[in-house]
Amino acid sequence: MSESGRVLLDLFLLFAAAKLAGEVFLRLRQPAVVGELLAGMIIGPHLLGLVSESEFLATFAELCVVFLLFVVGLEIDPTGLWRVGRQASAVAVMGVVLPFGFAMLLMKALDRPIGESLFVGAALTATSVGITARVLSDLGQLGTRVAHIILGAAVLDDILGMLVLAVVSGLAAGALSGSEILVLIAEALAFVVLAIVLGRSAVHRFSPGLYRMTRTSNPSVLFALAITVCFGFSALAEVIGLAAIIGAFFAGIIFAEVREAPELRRSMESIYELLVPIFFVLMGANVDVPRLLSMEVLPVGLVITALAIIGKVVGCGLASYNLGLREAMAIGVGMAPRGEVGIVIALVGLSKGVVSSDVYSQVILMSILTSIFAPSLLRVILSPPKEPAAPEEASSPGEAES
Amino acid sequence: MSESGRVLLDLFLLFAAAKLAGEVFLRLRQPAVVGELLAGMIIGPHLLGLVSESEFLATFAELCVVFLLFVVGLEIDPTGLWRVGRQASAVAVMGVVLPFGFAMLLMKALDRPIGESLFVGAALTATSVGITARVLSDLGQLGTRVAHIILGAAVLDDILGMLVLAVVSGLAAGALSGSEILVLIAEALAFVVLAIVLGRSAVHRFSPGLYRMTRTSNPSVLFALAITVCFGFSALAEVIGLAAIIGAFFAGIIFAEVREAPELRRSMESIYELLVPIFFVLMGANVDVPRLLSMEVLPVGLVITALAIIGKVVGCGLASYNLGLREAMAIGVGMAPRGEVGIVIALVGLSKGVVSSDVYSQVILMSILTSIFAPSLLRVILSPPKEPAAPEEASSPGEAES
Repeated sequence: MSESGRVLLDLFLLFAAAKLAGEVFLRLRQPAVVGELLAGMIIGPHLLGLVSESEFLATFAELCVVFLLFVVGLEIDPTGLWRVGRQASAVAVMGVVLPFGFAMLLMKALDRPIGESLFVGAALTATSVGITARVLSDLGQLGTRVAHIILGAAVLDDILGMLVLAVVSGLAAGALSGSEILVLIAEALAFVVLAIVLGRSAVHRFSPGLYRMTRTSNPSVLFALAITVCFGFSALAEVIGLAAIIGAFFAGIIFAEVREAPELRRSMESIYELLVPIFFVLMGANVDVPRLLSMEVLPVGLVITALAIIGKVVGCGLASYNLGLREAMAIGVGMAPRGEVGIVIALVGLSKGVVSSDVYSQVILMSILTSIFAPSLLRVILSPPKEPAAPEEASSPGEAES
Repeated sequence: MSESGRVLLDLFLLFAAAKLAGEVFLRLRQPAVVGELLAGMIIGPHLLGLVSESEFLATFAELCVVFLLFVVGLEIDPTGLWRVGRQASAVAVMGVVLPFGFAMLLMKALDRPIGESLFVGAALTATSVGITARVLSDLGQLGTRVAHIILGAAVLDDILGMLVLAVVSGLAAGALSGSEILVLIAEALAFVVLAIVLGRSAVHRFSPGLYRMTRTSNPSVLFALAITVCFGFSALAEVIGLAAIIGAFFAGIIFAEVREAPELRRSMESIYELLVPIFFVLMGANVDVPRLLSMEVLPVGLVITALAIIGKVVGCGLASYNLGLREAMAIGVGMAPRGEVGIVIALVGLSKGVVSSDVYSQVILMSILTSIFAPSLLRVILSPPKEPAAPEEASSPGEAES
């Protein structure tokens, strides 16, 4: 069979497995992304071997993730961001600092190289807002103070996570002197600031004129412009030594507040539905499952998972302790699922050769476990006051973790 | 820069060039696809060299074209097809037979191998319905008898073209005995018939149950199912020795008549807008422009173009001669633009190693020229009766070809 025939067969298997597993996990009230990762582990080269490793798919995955991060950026409402307030900002910052610090300490204790430690730290910073938002919505608590703080902080977290990744992916290039590190940090920050400031003003100034000039319809022009900027920023970020996804993420943010953003989000929906499930299955397929389950790799993976949860619960909890223990706990647990962004950061480290295959697998494990346990735990914490008639059932930890 | 960084930079250039050139050509009242092909020729490796040849992009192009043909199939209204009638069927069949025959005769006269001749013949059969439909719509003539016949016949043409390609791509695999040829033809026809009959009944029987079972929304389930079938049929077509696009095309037809087809078409719009312009720029970039313009390659390219136009005008004209000379001419000319499908067939031949680079370039030239000239000529033929005050201007052939 030709190369393209093999790729189509792989894509068929990947996509079908993703959709099937995603659906099964949705029925189990679990995030679809967990199902997709597990499906990838099962059909990947290390277990069933239905999908083989291929250079095309590796590059294709990096293309998928560019669209994933573009959409993540696009869903951030920058005007809403200013209203997030002090409490959510404190939660976000503490929820980045503590897990990052914990990871660095663990990796130092394990004697791992500094570059790898930085990536693990970065992977532990970002919160997956989608997973927690669904739990809050299921419980009918999207309008509460806890929900507002979690969602605001999670958005800030994505931005902080990308900033951390920008610096880390520069640093990880090699052992650097102090002044080189400063230059790198300055470069990363300059990219982000220029991208947002110049990009935003350019889009705002030129797009209305562009609409008038062109013969195609407005949504279509905006779509073409957005995709062009997304590719352009991603390539630019790679050229200056950052990761492509950082460019894609900030390209998304630029377009998040244009007047036609809702149409643009709708246009991106089917691209997202096509590419992102394939991406997560591929990320699962990267995991060497037998090795992950070995005594050399699994314990550290579980420790990383524990630190990921403790870091958020303690960090975010401390920053919101003034709200009382229950709300502080809910916020800490609500910030714990890592989902997409942690995986994406691990992938960047893996493809730059800085993160080893073992550590990559441990981070995927951490993403899966935090994405499964945190929502269940959050349901337990938030449910009792809603249904005081049956507190025993809802607070059984056994059920929560099933 | 990393492999993925280079790919992103290429995609940025390809997409930006596609959208810019497409827009310019729309303003010149020319099909966007012509602008995209020319843009590819200019930025491709043979002229400016801004985009280099890469294995990834070659495979990516074959992925893009799968979605292109899926959408082409999806836009075919199978229930409307039964109403096309005898006249349009005759136009379609004659418009396939004559250009195919002309191409075979020319290639025989040039002493080219039989496999290559078959592909050139196949590339000359299919009509690009989109280009002519736009002209008819511009002239406000979409409701006329001529328009109905052209659009009906063009749809049949796509199906006949894919059937021809199915047989040809099997045949071109090598010199075969008479019985092997019969087996191949039977296999191709069996694939198509089974795909449509079994696929249609499966989709109709199972999709309502699927909607009820799943937790995601109906359009989203249908989208997942359609993409799965599209990948599956494409891979299957490759496995049995046909081209992936044949599977994609018939997968599209299967979903063209489900109740939610309009939502599915809308979902595919942004995927189409993302991938198809990139595809055409890549197809342009494959053309060795200096060589195409050399005296060895250009004259044959022009002869192929002439035969492509004469074949449709004579074939379709004869089949509709009973409508009078003017309408018969309009139908013949309206069927002449080859656009997408001719290019796609040439690509299949090129990637199977059956079509030489020179002949590929000649087919692209034919697609470009028929897509430019046929609409202009059609405007001339159809305009006079609309504005009888200025017949001189509109019928100047000089203007028509500008």
